[in-house]
Amino acid sequence: MADTQTPDSYPVTKRNRTVRRPERGHYDKASVYDILDAAMFAHIAYVLDGQPICTPTGFWREGDDLYWHGSAASRMIRFQAPGVPVCVTVTHLDALIVARSAFHHSVNYRSVMAYGTARLVDDLALKRRAIDGFVDRFFHGRSRELRPPTPKEIKATSFVVMPIEQASAKIRAMHVSDDEEDYALPIWAARIPVRQVIGDIEACPRQLNGIARPDSVRAYQSGRSLDEALRDAYRVAHPA
Amino acid sequence: MADTQTPDSYPVTKRNRTVRRPERGHYDKASVYDILDAAMFAHIAYVLDGQPICTPTGFWREGDDLYWHGSAASRMIRFQAPGVPVCVTVTHLDALIVARSAFHHSVNYRSVMAYGTARLVDDLALKRRAIDGFVDRFFHGRSRELRPPTPKEIKATSFVVMPIEQASAKIRAMHVSDDEEDYALPIWAARIPVRQVIGDIEACPRQLNGIARPDSVRAYQSGRSLDEALRDAYRVAHPA
Repeated sequence: MADTQTPDSYPVTKRNRTVRRPERGHYDKASVYDILDAAMFAHIAYVLDGQPICTPTGFWREGDDLYWHGSAASRMIRFQAPGVPVCVTVTHLDALIVARSAFHHSVNYRSVMAYGTARLVDDLALKRRAIDGFVDRFFHGRSRELRPPTPKEIKATSFVVMPIEQASAKIRAMHVSDDEEDYALPIWAARIPVRQVIGDIEACPRQLNGIARPDSVRAYQSGRSLDEALRDAYRVAHPA
Repeated sequence: MADTQTPDSYPVTKRNRTVRRPERGHYDKASVYDILDAAMFAHIAYVLDGQPICTPTGFWREGDDLYWHGSAASRMIRFQAPGVPVCVTVTHLDALIVARSAFHHSVNYRSVMAYGTARLVDDLALKRRAIDGFVDRFFHGRSRELRPPTPKEIKATSFVVMPIEQASAKIRAMHVSDDEEDYALPIWAARIPVRQVIGDIEACPRQLNGIARPDSVRAYQSGRSLDEALRDAYRVAHPA
């Protein structure tokens, strides 16, 4: 089925090919990883009794495996071996594009759609490892600072893992792009950038005195772009 | 099937009931609308040949109808009358919650999952109306400032509409919430707020001289939260 594939890129078939605006499509792993690793939330699509469901959830990547906190989907997956088909989508909004015609109004964005078969992480040792992996991906080394998970908590936590079979990245990173003849029109046009920004960190009101902020949260500085913080935190936790 | 419904709230069934953490679930239309109208992007889940697909796309609301730019889904919907089941999800990330145990690490968020049957807007006059509705929802009055759509553009544009049959909102808007005995531990804990912020507006480099910024983009001021700007723009375009 695949017409192009290298060790560094995903196979391209009808399922993941970018049909509309193919110039925005990317299938190399570097592009896909860069978008995934700058995000904390993904939207997961799966089917339950014929009904498509789209659940937002915290996720992270280990190589070509995506993991997420699977409370909702886990009820369904539990009874279906070897797993269920899902689509995991991550989207960053970077700008609104205000053009001279309705047709060319657009947005700058970076998105990934990743396809595969999701299965439950149900071995207790693997679940314990996933709990640490989840926390440490965002806050490197934090699992060692915390009160350890109790057996009850480990039991109550559900993780889902999906090896990426195929993925595509879609990126628009341009200014206004109007029809050539429209640039002569006396119409205001602009790019309005948007960033997800970290605000002032608020210590827990019940924080004990004299506790310094640990290195595990170093990436998260007030005023910084969350994208950058997440990408940095990822690189520290998963050095190439 | 529904066990509670008023004119101001959606029917609650197994499909949209919040099972995990029911205290975070809301079914009143005011809560659902408030989350939808503060967003520009939704993630749409649908099923194509048994494969769930999750597509990010610009969307807007008119009463209980959700509209979106349906390039991807439209190929599938075109051949299926009266329509196809979809789930439309909108998520805002408001804070990272760094707690004293892995189990209580969390995020503050506002999300909506809306269910219904999507159909294509294929009448040309309705499509023309939807093009204006799309632009004016975000930039009130802008459709009158623009070079009008050409017949070719109208033909090339696909919209999908989904009357909301059911929806639920999920909201976490709290500080760190640890187990009572864990507050005594010498572990750093905090809330890290996150906002989507508008940057410096960049005029199109080919902008003609002397064109003032129109009122249609007034809501989008540098430094402002995108949420607030989108909600304001919505209220101007669709006064209650």
